[in-house]
Amino acid sequence: MILGIDIGGTTTKLGLVQNGQVIARSRLSTTGHADDRAFADALAHEAIELATSAGQQITAIGIGAPNANQLTGIIEMAPNLPWKHDVPMARMMADRLHVPAVLGNDANAAALGEWRFGAGHGIDDLLVVTLGTGVGSGFIVNGRLVLGSAGNAGELGHMILVPGGRACTCGRKGCLEAYVSIRGMLATYAEAASDSTQATGAPADVKTIADRANEGDKAAVECFRRTTEWLAIGLANAVCATGPRRIVLFGGIARNGELLMAPLRERFHATLLNIYQGRVDLTVSALPDDDAALLGAAALGTLG
Amino acid sequence: MILGIDIGGTTTKLGLVQNGQVIARSRLSTTGHADDRAFADALAHEAIELATSAGQQITAIGIGAPNANQLTGIIEMAPNLPWKHDVPMARMMADRLHVPAVLGNDANAAALGEWRFGAGHGIDDLLVVTLGTGVGSGFIVNGRLVLGSAGNAGELGHMILVPGGRACTCGRKGCLEAYVSIRGMLATYAEAASDSTQATGAPADVKTIADRANEGDKAAVECFRRTTEWLAIGLANAVCATGPRRIVLFGGIARNGELLMAPLRERFHATLLNIYQGRVDLTVSALPDDDAALLGAAALGTLG
Repeated sequence: MILGIDIGGTTTKLGLVQNGQVIARSRLSTTGHADDRAFADALAHEAIELATSAGQQITAIGIGAPNANQLTGIIEMAPNLPWKHDVPMARMMADRLHVPAVLGNDANAAALGEWRFGAGHGIDDLLVVTLGTGVGSGFIVNGRLVLGSAGNAGELGHMILVPGGRACTCGRKGCLEAYVSIRGMLATYAEAASDSTQATGAPADVKTIADRANEGDKAAVECFRRTTEWLAIGLANAVCATGPRRIVLFGGIARNGELLMAPLRERFHATLLNIYQGRVDLTVSALPDDDAALLGAAALGTLG
Repeated sequence: MILGIDIGGTTTKLGLVQNGQVIARSRLSTTGHADDRAFADALAHEAIELATSAGQQITAIGIGAPNANQLTGIIEMAPNLPWKHDVPMARMMADRLHVPAVLGNDANAAALGEWRFGAGHGIDDLLVVTLGTGVGSGFIVNGRLVLGSAGNAGELGHMILVPGGRACTCGRKGCLEAYVSIRGMLATYAEAASDSTQATGAPADVKTIADRANEGDKAAVECFRRTTEWLAIGLANAVCATGPRRIVLFGGIARNGELLMAPLRERFHATLLNIYQGRVDLTVSALPDDDAALLGAAALGTLG
């Protein structure tokens, strides 16, 4: 019985996972604790409550978090979490619950979750790309997650797509993430709207852009077209690195169904280098939205 | 005693390799044979002569060739070799010499050679980039060469660097190889010269550009500056995929010493994503020029 923990900026979710199913779940606030130790205490308390009420024994813990380094078990100065210093979360939870704990970054957790339980099941050369606030990725090669020498491999969102292009949150210019993330799509909508004679006002989120695109709003349609074009290049470039058999898209933007996927498949296959044609397929997450991050975290736990 | 074979467009080199040293070598023409079987017969004959004259027994064969697929042992329709069809070269040589044979593409052979015997020795997360007629690459992750699901991973030269940019030999636009290969540098020189008031005529090769740069020719200096900038982005992007500890540059363009490497190191470290800063170093091949390809091919042979 593996405990999956998904630490997000506002909420931390817990789930007991057995055979790829979340059989019991719970949550607590990530914020409002005195410090990282107080948070870990509250998290351990919640985990014990969860296991007790489910009549289960936890045998391993998997924790997904932003800025997590799997090699060290440390959350490294995460800008979107309450603790700006290094937090050795794997050890802190292992000490409190007396079972092995593996920490990994949330994109790698998503990759392992899809590989173990989802749309990448059994595909030993796999790329999982998370599309949301940022663009994350997890590369699986020869049946193993690629961590890189320092534990931080798989930053597809920070491959430079347009030299000298849009400012990125990383401080550089032209990263894929500056174009195809939520923030990127809002910026693209604004650019497309300024080229258009229609004036519908700035959308607040990607869902609004999608709704407008479905209603025929020209700027929204153009926003999806440009996003699709950029993402196709980014994915085709990633294929040139590790030659995956399949790419799985995960996260909010990927949930726009065929509005995104139909043109994306077309552009991706048109952009792909000839030697990979017919050898890579592109699909979306097969995990239930609410459980995907927990299943990914639990998949990390199986590595312990 | 491993026999390394490096099949090039005009010449095929053979070498007996022991403890990372080429102890005897030979060569034959790649062209002028009736067909692929006649070439394999001549190659096997040459190998037996070489081993006999050195008083050695061949125990394994490693073969590096363009367009070689390591998973299948087949040279797949190589545009720069005399045979335009698929050639099962690994099996053909194993049958003729009665020892195991491993075929791999020349960039992967270079990567294995640097990893086993050269500037990447002992570095289990390594990227080797070959800079010459084309831009090839071999990614080593967790101490294993990344082949990809179809045996053709590691095409760094065909990551798109400039969307909609220069035409590439692959039929697409804007690939790294269209900018930093020999052909790319000649094109860049022409562009830089047309922006300049100097008129020194089109250079025939990269060595001429390097000589002119050392003499202060503005177009040549600008050509190296732009090449360096593009290559820095390409390498920084590759780091985002697999997070290597070291990058080794290999091949003709990499032999321009500090004319290339000094500004390239500066631009690479300036371009690298913050989380990789100080965690990746950049160096050039440590293998002797004449033997590098043979040692790489021999390193393939050790996988058999």
